[in-house]
Amino acid sequence: MTSTLPASTRSLVDAQRLERLVSTIFASLGMSEAHATTTARGLVTADLRGHESHGVSNYIDVYYQPGLESGVINPRPNVRMVSESHTTSRWDGDGGIGFVVAEIAMNDAIERARRYGSGFATVANSRHFGMAQLYSRMAVEHDMIGIAMTNGGALAVPFRGADPRLGTNPISVAIPCGDEPPYVLDMATTAAAMGKILNADRDGRSVPREWALGTDGTATTDPADATAAGRLLPLGSTTDGGAHKGYGLALWVEIFSGVLSGTGFGKMLGADNVGHFVGAFRVDGFIPLETFKSMMDALVRDLRATPPARGYTEVLVAGDPEHRAEAERRIHGVPLHPTVVEMLRGYAARLGVPFDLEK
Amino acid sequence: MTSTLPASTRSLVDAQRLERLVSTIFASLGMSEAHATTTARGLVTADLRGHESHGVSNYIDVYYQPGLESGVINPRPNVRMVSESHTTSRWDGDGGIGFVVAEIAMNDAIERARRYGSGFATVANSRHFGMAQLYSRMAVEHDMIGIAMTNGGALAVPFRGADPRLGTNPISVAIPCGDEPPYVLDMATTAAAMGKILNADRDGRSVPREWALGTDGTATTDPADATAAGRLLPLGSTTDGGAHKGYGLALWVEIFSGVLSGTGFGKMLGADNVGHFVGAFRVDGFIPLETFKSMMDALVRDLRATPPARGYTEVLVAGDPEHRAEAERRIHGVPLHPTVVEMLRGYAARLGVPFDLEK
Repeated sequence: MTSTLPASTRSLVDAQRLERLVSTIFASLGMSEAHATTTARGLVTADLRGHESHGVSNYIDVYYQPGLESGVINPRPNVRMVSESHTTSRWDGDGGIGFVVAEIAMNDAIERARRYGSGFATVANSRHFGMAQLYSRMAVEHDMIGIAMTNGGALAVPFRGADPRLGTNPISVAIPCGDEPPYVLDMATTAAAMGKILNADRDGRSVPREWALGTDGTATTDPADATAAGRLLPLGSTTDGGAHKGYGLALWVEIFSGVLSGTGFGKMLGADNVGHFVGAFRVDGFIPLETFKSMMDALVRDLRATPPARGYTEVLVAGDPEHRAEAERRIHGVPLHPTVVEMLRGYAARLGVPFDLEK
Repeated sequence: MTSTLPASTRSLVDAQRLERLVSTIFASLGMSEAHATTTARGLVTADLRGHESHGVSNYIDVYYQPGLESGVINPRPNVRMVSESHTTSRWDGDGGIGFVVAEIAMNDAIERARRYGSGFATVANSRHFGMAQLYSRMAVEHDMIGIAMTNGGALAVPFRGADPRLGTNPISVAIPCGDEPPYVLDMATTAAAMGKILNADRDGRSVPREWALGTDGTATTDPADATAAGRLLPLGSTTDGGAHKGYGLALWVEIFSGVLSGTGFGKMLGADNVGHFVGAFRVDGFIPLETFKSMMDALVRDLRATPPARGYTEVLVAGDPEHRAEAERRIHGVPLHPTVVEMLRGYAARLGVPFDLEK
């Protein structure tokens, strides 16, 4: 989630210029300008909020570009609603990139919530949608509560299982506060996301035994072994730690994203196919908005005022680290790893656009 | 969750007769016959499904009776809706027992879902509602997906915190399958529920370090120390294990149950006051029911077919252990600890009703 190299080895770049360059890259790969902008904004927002693993660094050259070129990702999807009730809908993403598809679905859910108090949408036939909080947070802009889930491939073992069957299956819930920044939960239902293991491998660090099984089927601390095995552990990690709970949560996400959308699950997902579940609740469908917001402020302040346990200096609330990162990075710039800067410089040169990202 | 004494030391009793006796006890404490039956059924269902911690054993004489006698629990609550939108409602439980109050709210959510595709209700001013799956599973009877949450007191520490601020805050999600039993997630968002620690203390066993902090503020294996401290750890337990995720989930439940209902949270909850959140989704608001059910059957079969990891014999799905326990206990009886049998025998004698529970 946070940078693993000393800040001094990273370049600080301006988020808006970075977004324009990344948008130009996606437009050059066949996407409409609007869709390219949506995708670029989603990636840069992840970098701004400290989720480098879901930002511009990881996938542009190794996944999005080849995907768009080969047709695994449809650059011009015809995203359409397949069925609906008053408060629910199901969408076919037509193989489009998840950033675009999930945003359309979430806007539909928000509109249903505006009319009826709550609204939900499932999406089939989509592709990687980046950071789940991109969609849950859309609801907060309307003083609503947002929720977003996605499945994706078979990277995690069931509790007591040796083989991967489920994705890392994140859940994000975003809830407005009053004066305080929103509560933003955004968590893989595995103990750790695969990106953290890849980063540890790149940086030559071992990983906690809680994160993954190795190729021999037992917990490993070797990130290369964990990567080769592809068997992440559910949140809880062990029997004593309550891994049946993390597994149960992952399966909930799999069902809402993969089954309620008709997409499918685990190993049956071909060609990077994934499904999403998004939704919104009107706060004032339950309780007056101002009452809710002032109680939220009191709750998060009460939690932050908890005396820290030994070895810690402060207690935070979900969304606090991202809020801090974004406030700082909007002013001082987004730190990019040198290899990412070079990757982007290469795109700029090939596209004949100026490369001037410095903050 | 499962019995901790050898089966031979427990009496096997008939569930229906047990329910009748428990219902008689609650009626004698001032509850209407209908409410007494609802409460008794909720408790016995927990015993049938192997959740002894939420069954008849724990609370009748030490909590429900004194609560009903002192007025902390209102035996004749006027449960009323406070506000609503098409798909949302908020209720005042008037201090009634949660079994009764949450069932009323869930029936309202199901009716809204029937009409609009989804429906949700929050409840303020309620009391202990037993096992969360009692309410989520009500939706499954209507081929819907059900969800239930509750807050309750300050028993768990925030991630990095030394003092308790949140309840054990369970989430239950119940989802229909076709030929297979429903998926039923029902989990405290702490690594373990307090009842497990109390049981270990009673039986003289140590507890895993993953479960709780002791009075000195560090993880303990002594159940007496853990009980005295009252500082359960969030699911994930440690920084390496991802405890910020369990904490984030607990806070989600606290907000949905305590804030969206206007009840309050953590330490400010007086006199056993708790809030609930319940809801239902029509499956066919997204996808044809039969398509969904057959994909659910395929998914749970795929998961059960996962090769077990070393040291394990099988992979299960959330709800499987409860389904097995209920099937067996309906035939062979519900095992009750000798002290529970004596407690019930005492009630029967005082109420002048026959005591004949044997299967």
